[in-house]
Amino acid sequence: MKDLESLSASQAARALARRDIKATDLLLSCLDRIGQRESLIKAWVSLDKENAMARARELDKGPIKGILHGLPIGVKDLFDTCDLPTGYGSPIYANHYPAADAVSVALMRQAGGIILGKTVSTEFASFKPPATVNPHHLKHTPGGSSSGSASAVADFMVPLATGSQTAGSIIRPASYCGVVGFKPSFGKIMVAGVKALSPSLDTLGCFGRSIGDVALGVAAMSDDLELAHVSELHNKPRISICKTQDWSLAGKETAGALALARFAAEAISKGPVKDILLPTACNEITLVQSRIMSFEMVRALGFEQKSFAKKMNAQLLQQLNEGSKISYEQYQKDLLSAKEARFAIDQLFLNEVDLIIAPSATGEAPIAKEGTGNPVFCRGWTLLGLPCINLNISSGPNGLPVGVQLIAGPGKDRFLLSVARALAQSLPDPVLRDQA
Amino acid sequence: MKDLESLSASQAARALARRDIKATDLLLSCLDRIGQRESLIKAWVSLDKENAMARARELDKGPIKGILHGLPIGVKDLFDTCDLPTGYGSPIYANHYPAADAVSVALMRQAGGIILGKTVSTEFASFKPPATVNPHHLKHTPGGSSSGSASAVADFMVPLATGSQTAGSIIRPASYCGVVGFKPSFGKIMVAGVKALSPSLDTLGCFGRSIGDVALGVAAMSDDLELAHVSELHNKPRISICKTQDWSLAGKETAGALALARFAAEAISKGPVKDILLPTACNEITLVQSRIMSFEMVRALGFEQKSFAKKMNAQLLQQLNEGSKISYEQYQKDLLSAKEARFAIDQLFLNEVDLIIAPSATGEAPIAKEGTGNPVFCRGWTLLGLPCINLNISSGPNGLPVGVQLIAGPGKDRFLLSVARALAQSLPDPVLRDQA
Repeated sequence: MKDLESLSASQAARALARRDIKATDLLLSCLDRIGQRESLIKAWVSLDKENAMARARELDKGPIKGILHGLPIGVKDLFDTCDLPTGYGSPIYANHYPAADAVSVALMRQAGGIILGKTVSTEFASFKPPATVNPHHLKHTPGGSSSGSASAVADFMVPLATGSQTAGSIIRPASYCGVVGFKPSFGKIMVAGVKALSPSLDTLGCFGRSIGDVALGVAAMSDDLELAHVSELHNKPRISICKTQDWSLAGKETAGALALARFAAEAISKGPVKDILLPTACNEITLVQSRIMSFEMVRALGFEQKSFAKKMNAQLLQQLNEGSKISYEQYQKDLLSAKEARFAIDQLFLNEVDLIIAPSATGEAPIAKEGTGNPVFCRGWTLLGLPCINLNISSGPNGLPVGVQLIAGPGKDRFLLSVARALAQSLPDPVLRDQA
Repeated sequence: MKDLESLSASQAARALARRDIKATDLLLSCLDRIGQRESLIKAWVSLDKENAMARARELDKGPIKGILHGLPIGVKDLFDTCDLPTGYGSPIYANHYPAADAVSVALMRQAGGIILGKTVSTEFASFKPPATVNPHHLKHTPGGSSSGSASAVADFMVPLATGSQTAGSIIRPASYCGVVGFKPSFGKIMVAGVKALSPSLDTLGCFGRSIGDVALGVAAMSDDLELAHVSELHNKPRISICKTQDWSLAGKETAGALALARFAAEAISKGPVKDILLPTACNEITLVQSRIMSFEMVRALGFEQKSFAKKMNAQLLQQLNEGSKISYEQYQKDLLSAKEARFAIDQLFLNEVDLIIAPSATGEAPIAKEGTGNPVFCRGWTLLGLPCINLNISSGPNGLPVGVQLIAGPGKDRFLLSVARALAQSLPDPVLRDQA
């Protein structure tokens, strides 16, 4: 068996279910790849080779357990795992073993997934750059906070890995690393057992190398198993482009990616793909997201700040200090305007559009020492709670990947997967069509 | 110093802030009371006398820390505490010490509260009766799942205790034990660090012996400190009675309590207090709440069920088994109808009514061995996410307390406290007026 690590999660899952390949062989291929590359990429906090191998052997002998049968999975270190240390990216929790798995981790194991190890997260999913680098260019960031998961999947170390997004921590690293990232609707995957950063915003999801991969991942994590079967589109959807109010921050490569996505969308859209403005109730969503996140972080990390401030990074402390200046009154206003924005977006999706295409990031991944990149193009969509998928579309001046995100109405996760596949199939570049 | 344990939380907080009484003396009074009564009431899982006393001494010496300065507090054993074992009511977690405090516990400590111990919860907040009894009649249940908190406050062991409600676990035990229970708006208090049962429904709150007490508790737990100051009503509110579709299950004592509440409400209401029907979008809320809870419990407790089913009580396993029969499709339909019901109730509160009075429970507390009582009159309001307060209003055939709940529009927690106080002040019985 050679090169099994290059199979996508959905290819591997099919082969495993047919017993064409063994879980032990796939795991060995992934471990080989990690052995070759980890010293460069630094995607992992910990690996659990022995337990993973024991589990793979067990799965090879027993019946097919579920939709993730035999798939090695990377779990962002923000998710509790009962048998692997869970550090939440912070020295405060060095060698912390939670008493239970996060709900989503337990569901992945129940579906036959093999938790291979924990991937690097920034400290409590905040903004300080971690050691992980971008596999496409080792001097560049993979993005954050799901840095390790995006890099590990992009570098063929593992076919599937979990992520979480509060501002732009799934879609942005997926764009920077050239992989498919899926942030489903808010609440689709239970957050219980994942370290809270901003409960009004925290959303779980995953990374893969194709639409089928992330469908499998989110299907297992949410226990909505039907989601794994991405169905054909029956009707042409109404597709629009939304450059957003922050368009001035987009680089040329983002403009280029959006143009290519528009071209591909024309082939599957009902009518021409027009530019759309969001309802006025959404004018402030980026700012509102930012303030709600800052306010809630101060409370969510209050225990750690009180007891262990000296162990927290200075950038995070600074962010908490900023958040502590926001009044409860302002916070309540912001929650109310979020509610109004969500109601307005419901109406937009009912009446005018089925799918929105928008930038995933300002451009290609910046140099690592400059930070994990700007989440500005994700903040608003996270606040709105809409399902978003990053597709890899083109590349930037340094040859790094550049994606766009596809966004569907609230709760339309299945539909989003179907359109994303159709759109990927219409991309001009045959390599990028493999994402379908 | 004598009888300090009989001070309400707000009386004690004022006296502590003025240095009229010492935190150590209040604590000793509470410990005395617990020493006399705990063998009968069985409200506590654990007590932390030494740490609590050390903390009280520290608070007596230092500056006023916050709105809970020096108040001894009982914490439901579903909430994580880093220095007290946290069992979630289950033998699976015997002697479990979480790495961090729940967000709400950390906020109470930050406000100067003294965590005196953990109060009895049913196993994972489900329905099997615990050992705790009702202080008003030891053969009767205090209700559940926040059994220990309601009993401890009713029995003057502690002036304030936390609770959580997924179906009716704050309002129902408050009614059975004759105390004030406050379930604020969904999401008002962050649930991070509290064992999840059904994330779409789980809501935190507290018990006290007056409106001012629960205002203090929820103010601290949510960090909305202004909430602690219950303001006078400036305008007469529109008040209605809602008997709900489950009225046939209400006993005579519940009908009596509702009649008394109507009488008190007339004195403060704008216009006559009429009976109201909920919008048709709310017709199924009790059933929908029940199905969403059952469905989500299966996922939230999946880890425990897989690894430790033998340690779980049979009633809970039966409930999980029922929940596992509900399809994801049904669950999605139920989430959608919950969203529609919430939208309809928003409109009702905008256009027709400011406060609803409804039954808290079917009647007085049943005999303990018959279970923790029926949460039917709470399920719908929990699903709607509305803030609810139980007031003690009258008594049943065995002399046990019977309450009603007051319900305000979404996010109207401050307003609810103001009306609840005004209504309590209008009650005919002077003892019950003390709740104001």
